[in-house]
Amino acid sequence: MQELLPAEQAVFNQLKKSIEDVYHRHGFMSIETPIIDRTEILFSKAGGDTEKQIYKVIKTEETAENADQALRFDHTVPLARYVVQHENDLAFPFHVTQIGRNFRGERAQKGRFREFYQCDVDIIGRNELPVAYDAKVIATVYEALKTFNLPKMQIRISNRKILSGFVQLLGLADKTSYISSIIDHAEKVSEDITAQALRDLDISEENVVKITTFINTHGTPDEVENSLKSIVDTTTLAEGLAEIRTVYAVLAASGLKDHATIDLMIVRGLDYYTGTVVETFLPEYRAIGSIASGGRYDNLASNFTDQKLPGVGVSIGLTRLFYVLNQNGLLKTETTNPIDIALIPITDNEQAFAIQLANKLRTENKTVDVVMTDKKLGDKLAYAAKIAKNAIVIGENEVNSNQVQLKNLQTGETSSLIL
Amino acid sequence: MQELLPAEQAVFNQLKKSIEDVYHRHGFMSIETPIIDRTEILFSKAGGDTEKQIYKVIKTEETAENADQALRFDHTVPLARYVVQHENDLAFPFHVTQIGRNFRGERAQKGRFREFYQCDVDIIGRNELPVAYDAKVIATVYEALKTFNLPKMQIRISNRKILSGFVQLLGLADKTSYISSIIDHAEKVSEDITAQALRDLDISEENVVKITTFINTHGTPDEVENSLKSIVDTTTLAEGLAEIRTVYAVLAASGLKDHATIDLMIVRGLDYYTGTVVETFLPEYRAIGSIASGGRYDNLASNFTDQKLPGVGVSIGLTRLFYVLNQNGLLKTETTNPIDIALIPITDNEQAFAIQLANKLRTENKTVDVVMTDKKLGDKLAYAAKIAKNAIVIGENEVNSNQVQLKNLQTGETSSLIL
Repeated sequence: MQELLPAEQAVFNQLKKSIEDVYHRHGFMSIETPIIDRTEILFSKAGGDTEKQIYKVIKTEETAENADQALRFDHTVPLARYVVQHENDLAFPFHVTQIGRNFRGERAQKGRFREFYQCDVDIIGRNELPVAYDAKVIATVYEALKTFNLPKMQIRISNRKILSGFVQLLGLADKTSYISSIIDHAEKVSEDITAQALRDLDISEENVVKITTFINTHGTPDEVENSLKSIVDTTTLAEGLAEIRTVYAVLAASGLKDHATIDLMIVRGLDYYTGTVVETFLPEYRAIGSIASGGRYDNLASNFTDQKLPGVGVSIGLTRLFYVLNQNGLLKTETTNPIDIALIPITDNEQAFAIQLANKLRTENKTVDVVMTDKKLGDKLAYAAKIAKNAIVIGENEVNSNQVQLKNLQTGETSSLIL
Repeated sequence: MQELLPAEQAVFNQLKKSIEDVYHRHGFMSIETPIIDRTEILFSKAGGDTEKQIYKVIKTEETAENADQALRFDHTVPLARYVVQHENDLAFPFHVTQIGRNFRGERAQKGRFREFYQCDVDIIGRNELPVAYDAKVIATVYEALKTFNLPKMQIRISNRKILSGFVQLLGLADKTSYISSIIDHAEKVSEDITAQALRDLDISEENVVKITTFINTHGTPDEVENSLKSIVDTTTLAEGLAEIRTVYAVLAASGLKDHATIDLMIVRGLDYYTGTVVETFLPEYRAIGSIASGGRYDNLASNFTDQKLPGVGVSIGLTRLFYVLNQNGLLKTETTNPIDIALIPITDNEQAFAIQLANKLRTENKTVDVVMTDKKLGDKLAYAAKIAKNAIVIGENEVNSNQVQLKNLQTGETSSLIL
C-alpha cells in the first residue's frame, strides 16, 4: 500500500474528487460494492494470473480450505453481481461509477501496490447496449484525466473480435490465448523476441509475418482496414471493424479525433472482454504504461443470470498513476499549510475566547485550529508555522478590546481584525 | 455490508463529505492507512471479543496458521503504527481524520455490518497532550453530527481513571474488567439484573449498592463529585475528576454545556482507553445506542515505540448511523433524479450535435447524459424521466436552427435555448 503524508494525501484526495466530479457531470452515478465478497463470485471471472493474486478472507477459527470469502480484485465482477441483484431498481443503460480500493497479492514492485484505488465508469445495458456507449465511457475517462494537466495523452483502441477473427482466419484458433499473451507483451520486448515466441508455438513463417504485421497495424479505421486487407480477407472481420468505426466516429464527435488511434497491439489481459478494448498512454512517458484501460464485456453477468446484461467500462488506476506522476515530476504537490488560521491563546484564560472566535471564523468557511498545548508562546508559534498560513495570538488585551491581529506566517505581515 | 441503490448512495456520500468538511474546518488533516495490515500490529491492542472478529487475509497457497496479514478492525490501531512510522514528518499535536471502511466478522444483525464506515478524528501528542484536546475532538464530532439535522443529541462523558480508582477503593481491583463489562451493559438490562450480576461476582451487598449508585451517577462535575463523596473518599479520584472538569469546561466554552453530561455509566468496550471516554446519544431515540464514541488512549503506540505518544479520538459509525436513521425516518433522502439534463438525439445523425452540446453544458457545471440507445423516442423519453430532471430532444430541425427546447420532466414546462 502507498501510504501518504497529509500534504500528499490532500493532493491525492483532490485528484480523486476531480475525477468523481467529471464522472458525475457525465451522468454516472456512484455506488459502492463490498470489499469482501463470496469466493465463488470473485473467482467466477478472474482467470489466469489474477486468480493467484486474490486474497481469501478467514476468521480465526476457519481454515484456508473452507474460506468462502475473498477480497475483490476489481470493481467489474462485483458490479455484475450488483446489477443482477438490484436489476429491478435500476434504469438501463445503467451509468455507474465506482471509486475505491481493490486488492491483489502481487509481488510488491515500484508503482504496483497490493491495495490500489481504481476509478471506474461502466455502462450496463439490458438485452442490448449500442457500441456508441463504448466511446462514451472512453471519452468520459479522457475528460477525467484532463484534470491532471498531463502532457499529451493517446487513446489506443482495438477490438477482441478482430483479433479472434484474424487468428481463426490463419487457422490458429486453438492457440488464441497464447497468441494474445504474446501480442499483449509485444510492446515491452523486441520484434525478434516476439517473432521467436510465435515460432515457439509452431506457427509457420508466413503466419509469423502476418501476425507481426497485425501487431504493428495502427491508425485511422481506414488505415487499419487497408493494412488488414493486405494480409487477410477482411469480410469475416466486418463486425469488429464496424464497431471500431463507430467508436472512432463518436470519439471524433467528442473532439478526441487527434487523441484516438486504432492499434491492434492492444489486447488487455483480463478474460472477460468481448469487443472494444482500450488503453491510454502518455506518448512522452511511454515507460509509464497504460494509465486508464478497459473494454466491452458482453457476458460478465452470465454466471449469475440468464438475462443478457452487456457492459462496457474503463478504469483509471489512480494509486499507480499518482505514484508514477509523482516520480516523473508531473504532479503539482501542495506546498502551503492546510489550515487557514491558528488561534493561539497565551494562557488557558483566553481559551474560551479563542474557541468562540474559531467557531465564528469557521462559519465563514475558514479552516481554524485552536492551539491548546501548555507550551511557551514561542513553541506554540513554531507549531502554528508548521500547520497554518496565519496566526492570531490572543492575550488579556485582545479579550478585553475584542480586537486581534492576524499575522501572515509566511510574510510576517499583520492586519487588525475587529470582532 | 450495507449495499445501497444510487439515490441512497448519493445521500450517504453527501453526509460523509459533510462530516469530512467539518473535520477539515476544525483543523484535522486526512490520511489513509492500509486496510490490510500485519497481524501482529492489529492483534497488539484488540483484546476480547474484537480479537475473535478480526478477518485474516491469505493468498491461495497459504494456510490459516501462517496468515501474517489481516483486515483492520478500526482506524486507531493502524493510526498508532502510522504515527510511529512517520513521526519525523508530522507536526505534533497531530490532528488527523480517517474516513473509511473497517471490518469485523460479527454475526450479521440489524444495523451491524461486517464492513462499516467510520469517520474518526484523533489528536496525537508527543510526550504530552493536555486534556483540553479531549474536549476538542468531542466538540468537533458534535459539530459534524449537526450536519445530519438530528433531534437533540446528548454527549455522555466519563473517565476510566474514576472507574478504576473507585473499584480499587472498594477493594475489588482484581474484578475490574468484570465490573466494567457489567456497567457497560447496565443500560440495556434492569437494575435487578445488574445487581444480580454483581452478586454473582461474590461482591458484598454494601458494595453492590455503591456500584449501583456509581452507575446512576450523572450530571455536572459538581453533582457527580457530590454523589461520589456520599459513597467513597474521593481524594484518590482527584485526577479523573479534574480531567472531567477540564473537558466539561472546554465543552462549555464551545457552546455545548446543555448537550454534555458527566455519566459514570459510560465505560466503552475497547481495552485501550486510559482516561476520558465518551458516547453520544439521541435521548428521543435511546434504543439506537451511541452514534459517536471514543476516548483517550495514552499508551496505544507502546507496542511499537518507547516514545510517549498519548492520543484521543472519537469516531462516528457512519454505516450504522445511516441505517438506523433511515429506519427511524430521520434521513431526508434524495427524491429528485441526479442528472440535470438528458439529451436525446432522435437518430444517430444528431448524435454528434448532442455530444457537443453536452460538453458545452458541462462547462456550465451541469450534469448531462446523452441517450444513445437505438430505441424509439418514447422509450428514450421514458428512460430520461427515470434519471434526469430535464430533457432536450434533438432532431434535424434543432441541428439546423441551433435552437433546442428544454423540457422539465416533472412539470412538463418547456423553454427555448438558443445555442
